[in-house]
Amino acid sequence: MDQLVYAKVEQATALLAEFGLDAALLQFTRESGDHRTPIDELCIGTAVTWPSAFLIGAARERIAIVATGDVENVRAVGAWDEVIGYVRDIGEPLRTVLKRLDPGRIGVPFSVDDDQADAISHGMWLMLNDCLAGTPYIARLTSASSLLTAVRGRKLPEEVRRMESVIAETHSLFEEFERCLRSGITEREAQAAMHTAFDVRGLGAAWHHEYDPIVNFGPESLFGHTRPADVPLAPGMTVHVDMGVRRAGYCSDLQRMWYALAPGELSAPRDVSEAFDNLVHSIQAGFGALRPGVAGWHVDSVARGVLTGAGYQEPEFAFGHQLGRSAHDGGALLGPRWPRYGDRPLLPVEEGNVFTLEFGLRTRHGVVALEEDVLVTTEGARYLHEPQTELRLLRL
Amino acid sequence: MDQLVYAKVEQATALLAEFGLDAALLQFTRESGDHRTPIDELCIGTAVTWPSAFLIGAARERIAIVATGDVENVRAVGAWDEVIGYVRDIGEPLRTVLKRLDPGRIGVPFSVDDDQADAISHGMWLMLNDCLAGTPYIARLTSASSLLTAVRGRKLPEEVRRMESVIAETHSLFEEFERCLRSGITEREAQAAMHTAFDVRGLGAAWHHEYDPIVNFGPESLFGHTRPADVPLAPGMTVHVDMGVRRAGYCSDLQRMWYALAPGELSAPRDVSEAFDNLVHSIQAGFGALRPGVAGWHVDSVARGVLTGAGYQEPEFAFGHQLGRSAHDGGALLGPRWPRYGDRPLLPVEEGNVFTLEFGLRTRHGVVALEEDVLVTTEGARYLHEPQTELRLLRL
Repeated sequence: MDQLVYAKVEQATALLAEFGLDAALLQFTRESGDHRTPIDELCIGTAVTWPSAFLIGAARERIAIVATGDVENVRAVGAWDEVIGYVRDIGEPLRTVLKRLDPGRIGVPFSVDDDQADAISHGMWLMLNDCLAGTPYIARLTSASSLLTAVRGRKLPEEVRRMESVIAETHSLFEEFERCLRSGITEREAQAAMHTAFDVRGLGAAWHHEYDPIVNFGPESLFGHTRPADVPLAPGMTVHVDMGVRRAGYCSDLQRMWYALAPGELSAPRDVSEAFDNLVHSIQAGFGALRPGVAGWHVDSVARGVLTGAGYQEPEFAFGHQLGRSAHDGGALLGPRWPRYGDRPLLPVEEGNVFTLEFGLRTRHGVVALEEDVLVTTEGARYLHEPQTELRLLRL
Repeated sequence: MDQLVYAKVEQATALLAEFGLDAALLQFTRESGDHRTPIDELCIGTAVTWPSAFLIGAARERIAIVATGDVENVRAVGAWDEVIGYVRDIGEPLRTVLKRLDPGRIGVPFSVDDDQADAISHGMWLMLNDCLAGTPYIARLTSASSLLTAVRGRKLPEEVRRMESVIAETHSLFEEFERCLRSGITEREAQAAMHTAFDVRGLGAAWHHEYDPIVNFGPESLFGHTRPADVPLAPGMTVHVDMGVRRAGYCSDLQRMWYALAPGELSAPRDVSEAFDNLVHSIQAGFGALRPGVAGWHVDSVARGVLTGAGYQEPEFAFGHQLGRSAHDGGALLGPRWPRYGDRPLLPVEEGNVFTLEFGLRTRHGVVALEEDVLVTTEGARYLHEPQTELRLLRL
């Protein structure tokens, strides 16, 4: 039995009323091993093959309707009190269950704005509408986006414990990364050393391993979600790494910085040290503005303003995103009000949310960027580890 | 550069006309590392973070529209001739590109019937409609299901080569499996031995590793997509394994059978040997009926009829599914016309399709089930390896 999946489904049923729902289809899916969505690990606990419905009700019902071949597997998760098997057609047991519960408003997991609450495919949405054609339930379907955003974003103590553990592990990986930095090592080799360390420690990559970690050596390195190149490390370059790992289902996402001193240098050149200091100020300013109830865009604008106020080019991405089972865990976003982010920058920050705080700048010596992971508490934000406030200097 | 992704996108552009399309959005997605769909590996070649469009046109255009942070990564795939980066809103470049191509019918990857052609989430479908509101293109959107089914189902020679290789590897794993069969070994231990073998050989599981392989010892074992139990192997039991592995992106899916002789027995008991022989006949009958142009349900009914004609209970699942990048690769299905399978049993079998042929029966001594992998050629079906036609006997 998966205790944490059980607890998250419990949390979801307890929150139905807050979001004006009488029931929610947490998933309506098929072949979910091939169609992986963020809700499956959080609230379902296994993969299914044939069309399957996972329904919660206001009286704490937890009902799975799956083909007979999936029954034993879904039962083994332990999160579903009633597991109904069917052979030919899911429509009939689904209509029977809805008739029994007779819910007024039924949440369905789709969302334009929050990808992490957007779990039903368009084909399955059409199938659901086919299944319910001619019933009163079709008119009661509505988006479960707000419910799912809350279930994902309001971390339980066990989720925070897992994240603290994987974040601590990532700091140990940064030490291992620093030890492999020598003159001539390439970005690709440094990434490969980290992949070996992931394997040895039994860690998964938090995002596609081709660009986890992202490694940037010097001014020619590409900035963004990029694969490492055959750039060799040399004096006079910044070293930047953006790394996330996953353990027990939960992710870290952190960025750390070094500067490789050129011969005769005792400290980093002024463009690098100024960029670094401004980044630290930007993150500290955003950290100070982060508390329950504030809209994400406001936190972004405080942090962004430090950089634009100091004359830097405006960053092309958000200041912070939530972190959890995914590196980009959806919900309220500490980002600008651009169409690309939908309504997420307008959502209020909540207690229990875990955010990254991150920005990056280009200098003549390479990328300068930082990223910290913080928990929102009643009092404000709390770093889940020691933030980087000093640029580390390397003598190659 | 990913040559096979390039070739599959090429195949898709060449097939647009056959399916009455002038263009197709092969994907319209975001956070595709967390939202994995079958089209991503087949035709996209990497994961993206922000809303992204991958469009092909009748004049062989291959255009990716992605946020600037994903540009380098998508360029590295080499399958997209034009990679357009945006910062704030994907709607503007998407409308510009559609205006330039001005396609009459635009395929979108959704499907009620074929899960492997059902790639766009309902939230992204709504976003697409928002992006195109007020343009003539919104009325030109249609399902790309038939196109995507053909692209996936019509295997290129390189795809068949990869599958032959991974199927041969699976046979070598069955020999390793047989060597670990001794009195008292549990289903769980036998599965763990195979997981170790996967790791040693650098193979991935073809489906969720919790039930890959499925291992069944004797009559108490659960049949279906079930995890192994602590059932120890003893004389007088059937041994059944359903195993699939993945290498270079392609899967095998095979089932093999043994019987553990009881003291004094020289052959399997009659219920086991009769079930086995009827299964072999059923598979051979289906194999004989399989050729280009035949509807899948017909092949299923031929094979199913052998078992029901011999007095067995009707199997609760389809006789065969396609195999490729996924163990269940979508498209035409050798299955009964039950609502659970949508229109897939009605689709014609095509040259280049790879199918499994499989059924299973329960006996007093345990599960008896077989599964073979075959390629459809102009002449009919060809086994991609030696089928099992003799029950293997174990002396524990």
